[in-house]
Amino acid sequence: MKARGWAVGVDFGGTSVRLGLIARDGRIRRRRRLVSRELGTPAEFVARLSEAIRALTRAQGFDPSRLAGLCVGAPGPVDSERGVVHELVNVPGWRRVPLAEQLERRLRCRCLVDNDVNLFTLGEWRFGAGRGAGQLIGITLGTGVGGGLVCEGALYRGASGAAGEVGHMLVDPRGRRCGCGQRGCLEGQIGTRAILARGRSALRHRRGILARLARQANGAMSAPLIRRAAYLGDPDARRVWTDVGRWLGLGLANLVHLLNPDRIVIGGGLSHSWRLFAPTAMAVLRERTFPIAAGAVQVVRGRLGDDAGMLGGAALVWGTLQHAAGE
Amino acid sequence: MKARGWAVGVDFGGTSVRLGLIARDGRIRRRRRLVSRELGTPAEFVARLSEAIRALTRAQGFDPSRLAGLCVGAPGPVDSERGVVHELVNVPGWRRVPLAEQLERRLRCRCLVDNDVNLFTLGEWRFGAGRGAGQLIGITLGTGVGGGLVCEGALYRGASGAAGEVGHMLVDPRGRRCGCGQRGCLEGQIGTRAILARGRSALRHRRGILARLARQANGAMSAPLIRRAAYLGDPDARRVWTDVGRWLGLGLANLVHLLNPDRIVIGGGLSHSWRLFAPTAMAVLRERTFPIAAGAVQVVRGRLGDDAGMLGGAALVWGTLQHAAGE
Repeated sequence: MKARGWAVGVDFGGTSVRLGLIARDGRIRRRRRLVSRELGTPAEFVARLSEAIRALTRAQGFDPSRLAGLCVGAPGPVDSERGVVHELVNVPGWRRVPLAEQLERRLRCRCLVDNDVNLFTLGEWRFGAGRGAGQLIGITLGTGVGGGLVCEGALYRGASGAAGEVGHMLVDPRGRRCGCGQRGCLEGQIGTRAILARGRSALRHRRGILARLARQANGAMSAPLIRRAAYLGDPDARRVWTDVGRWLGLGLANLVHLLNPDRIVIGGGLSHSWRLFAPTAMAVLRERTFPIAAGAVQVVRGRLGDDAGMLGGAALVWGTLQHAAGE
Repeated sequence: MKARGWAVGVDFGGTSVRLGLIARDGRIRRRRRLVSRELGTPAEFVARLSEAIRALTRAQGFDPSRLAGLCVGAPGPVDSERGVVHELVNVPGWRRVPLAEQLERRLRCRCLVDNDVNLFTLGEWRFGAGRGAGQLIGITLGTGVGGGLVCEGALYRGASGAAGEVGHMLVDPRGRRCGCGQRGCLEGQIGTRAILARGRSALRHRRGILARLARQANGAMSAPLIRRAAYLGDPDARRVWTDVGRWLGLGLANLVHLLNPDRIVIGGGLSHSWRLFAPTAMAVLRERTFPIAAGAVQVVRGRLGDDAGMLGGAALVWGTLQHAAGE
């Protein structure tokens, strides 16, 4: 395979930075993983990431300059046209970093930068559970609740690259306080923090399964623990997930009313609890929307797991190449 | 001007059907108006509408077959590809009417059918307050609260033509009952029915300006009456409009979070109270959204009044003509 047949996708997360050397059919041939908090300042990050990318392509026998391109997904708002990271909420020191330009200078290959949830959505559209969808909404459930929109195969970014903030959509004016400072955002209702708070408040029943599991974990509450307790039949733990399903269903209903998508793909760490919240979410969605729109949408779980972002990066590289070549 | 330079736009409303013979620059050269409830069955409607269109073009000296095209905006869900009206909630007897085909057979010109709020939005985009916008959201405020999306000059219709249901977006799970049967839809909170209910409950203060105006109107409550009372300083009437502003602001914030538009155009009968609700709506919008998206959007009042739908119909005729010709 010629070097131009390869792209590198980079998923820059709060915990780790994952890199993949990806073939055009979506196969990830080689991988690397860096620990985010060891990456230092943006300048040090660029140096280490460049090194890792060079190691990745050289192991395959070519120089990074011969890649079709490279795309980094960043967990925050970006200016994808200029390849600038505006800000990373969870990584200090990142403000207006011209990441694409800096990587291009070192690697001499085309570099793109986009939002991580945009790339999750594009990855699932091209290689995963979103294949063939005309109007696709991607949602990631975790500490943050993110969204991306892919319409006829192209990312919809909005007027200033900030579209898809599904997590800050209002679902309850009297709801919980969200990290953004407002009340009743979807993220405030179903993000990991809300789930842990509900789990902790359920510990008042000190004899239940959830309480026993929490004691075994030295009192540490976690989403996997609440999941396990729910599967073991703890009613409070089950209620945590049906609550998630109810609020998620209300959020999905808003999306279906507004955008009438044909598919919604749900990923992120909390999607491991899919079977515990999805039935409630689907029931609420159907109840609150009109048959003409509800009947047109499939809500599915992502298929690519943690690789979706890297694969979306590769998809963006090839998509924009085609665009540039007028294919 | 050659006949092909003309389009006919038809706005099919619950009260009246308005027709315009429209030049390419958006000038409405001739108009007709029919009373909706006198139009009978769909078949009778088609016959009378065809007659009215024929009168319109003949007055200008040509036959309808020489029009660039004709577009009807209908107040309900339509299949715009096939030109079929699915259903009109407020007009009995309309179910799956192949309106475009029936009009084409009589008039021998190209006929399009679309949703009325879609055409409002397209009209404002092409000729009114939405000119030059890349991502435009149109909202009509009245008995119903409707929405339309125009992205890079093209209507976004969604997977089954049902996109843009701004009015049924949830803003308060404990809110008022909406006509759709659900609680707390934007329409349920700020549609005309909600405004009248708030006005009536304000009549408990039997000495206020609102009460006096209502007595003068023989007890009939109306949106213009509440507007007049608010302008005259009645605090309850003012609160009705600031409540509208608050809920509208929350709805706008959701739209800005999700779609990051560069402009939102607001029309419909209730937009006459713009100055009474817009300041509150704008404050809530700014408070609830991120600067990167809030700074990108202008929220403006529609400029075309009741003509927006007709003009949007004409814009659709020319837009699809260009498309067909590959211009």
